[in-house]
Amino acid sequence: MYTLYYSPGTASMVVHLALLEIGAPYELRLVDFDRDAQHSDEYLRLNPRGIVPTLVIDGRPRNESAALLTMLAERHPEAKLIPPSGTPEREAWLQWVVYLSNTLMSAYRFWFYPADLGMAEHTPDVRAALQKKIEAVWHLLDAQLAKDGPYLLGATFSGADLLLTMLMRWSRNMPRPATEWPALKQLADLVRARPSWKKLYELEGLSGW
Amino acid sequence: MYTLYYSPGTASMVVHLALLEIGAPYELRLVDFDRDAQHSDEYLRLNPRGIVPTLVIDGRPRNESAALLTMLAERHPEAKLIPPSGTPEREAWLQWVVYLSNTLMSAYRFWFYPADLGMAEHTPDVRAALQKKIEAVWHLLDAQLAKDGPYLLGATFSGADLLLTMLMRWSRNMPRPATEWPALKQLADLVRARPSWKKLYELEGLSGW
Ligand SMILES: N[C@@H](CCC(=O)N[C@@H](CS)C(=O)NCC(=O)O)C(=O)O
Ligand SMILES: N[C@@H](CCC(=O)N[C@@H](CS)C(=O)NCC(=O)O)C(=O)O
Repeated sequence: MYTLYYSPGTASMVVHLALLEIGAPYELRLVDFDRDAQHSDEYLRLNPRGIVPTLVIDGRPRNESAALLTMLAERHPEAKLIPPSGTPEREAWLQWVVYLSNTLMSAYRFWFYPADLGMAEHTPDVRAALQKKIEAVWHLLDAQLAKDGPYLLGATFSGADLLLTMLMRWSRNMPRPATEWPALKQLADLVRARPSWKKLYELEGLSGW
Repeated sequence: MYTLYYSPGTASMVVHLALLEIGAPYELRLVDFDRDAQHSDEYLRLNPRGIVPTLVIDGRPRNESAALLTMLAERHPEAKLIPPSGTPEREAWLQWVVYLSNTLMSAYRFWFYPADLGMAEHTPDVRAALQKKIEAVWHLLDAQLAKDGPYLLGATFSGADLLLTMLMRWSRNMPRPATEWPALKQLADLVRARPSWKKLYELEGLSGW
C-alpha cells in the first residue's frame, strides 16, 4: 500500500505520475506549503528535511523523487517504467535518471531558492550562470533526442521521460523554456498526451503547462 | 569487459572501488587533467560533457558515477554491493544513493568550481551557504548512522558506503571535515580498512586521507 505526500506541481509530480501509470491503489495527502505544513512536527517525523515528496511504502517512509520513481518501477515491472536488469536499456535509464537528478534537480533548487545560496535574490551573474547550466542540459538532451528519440530510451517510453517532462515544465517561466528545443518539445507533447498526465492535472488541480 | 576513464581521487573513485570490490577484470585509462585531456576530441566522443568518470561496458560508454555504481552492482549480484530487488534494503539503498548524489555531488561541484556560479571566487555569503548545505548533510547522516549504523544499511556494508566515503574524503580540506562527526568517522574507518580502499590508493597513487 502506498501513501504519497505531495504538493501540486512540485517534485512529487513524477511519483504521482508513476503511480497513475502503474494503476496501483494509493492515498494522496496534501502537504500545504501555504501553511508551511512541510515543517510541521508530524511531517518532519516522516521526512526530517521538510521537503516533498515522501512515499510511504508498506509503512516505511521513503524520499527523493528519482529514487521513488526507481522503487515503484522495480516493484511493478509489468508497467514497463524501467527496463529489466542486465539490458543495455537499463544502463541508459539509470544514467539518464541520475544525470537529470544531479544536474537539473540541484540547479533548479538554487534557481527557485536563492536563500540556499545565501542570497535574498540572485545577483545577475549567479542568475546567468544557473540559467546557462540549465540550458546546457536542454542542449545536450535535445541533441540526444534528435539523434535517437523520440524518448530518452529511443523508440520506447519509460519512467525517465516522466522525470524529464516534469523538469521541463519547471522551466516554463524561465527566459528560455525547455520547449523551445524541438526534440524536447516533441517528447513533452508525447508525455502530455498520456492519460496519466491528464489525470494528474485533474487530481492536483494544475492547469496550463 | 570494462574500461574505466578516471582521474585520481575524483568522482571516478567510487566506480574504481566498485570494480575492485567485484574483482572483475577491467582496464584503467588515465584522463590527465593537467593536460586538459577531459576536453580532448577523443574523450569528448565518449563523454560530451568532458568530465570523469566514463565506464565503457561491452563497448557502450556510460557516465554518472552513482549510475555506474548501480550498473556494476546489478551486473555482479554476488558482490552484494546492492540488496536484491523487492526488499526494503533495496529501497533504502536507492534513497541514500540518490540523496548523496543530489545533495553532495552538486554542492561540491559549486564549491570546487565557482565558475559554475559565474564567479572567479565565491563571495563569503555563497561560500558560507555552500558550507552550510554540505554540513547539513553530515549532520543528517551522522544522526542516521548513530541511530542505525554503522553502515548506511545498518549492520551490512554496501556500495552506498563507498559513495559516501568518497564524498566524505572531498571535505578533508574544508573548515569542518566530515570526519568530525563521530558516526561518519566510524563508517569511513570501516571503509578505509577494506582491501579495495588500500588497493585503490596504490593504483591511483593517492596518499593521506
Ligand atoms: N531532491 C528532492 C527535492 C525535493 C524538493 O526540493 N522539494 C521541494 C518542492 S519541488 C520542496 O519540498 N520545497 C519545500 C521547502 O523547501 O520548504 C527530490 O527530488 O525529492
Ligand atoms: N555527476 C558527475 C560529476 C562528475 C564530475 O564533476 N567530475 C569532475 C571531477 S570530480 C570532473 O571531471 N571535472 C573536470 C572538469 O570539469 O573539467 C558524476 O558523478 O559522475
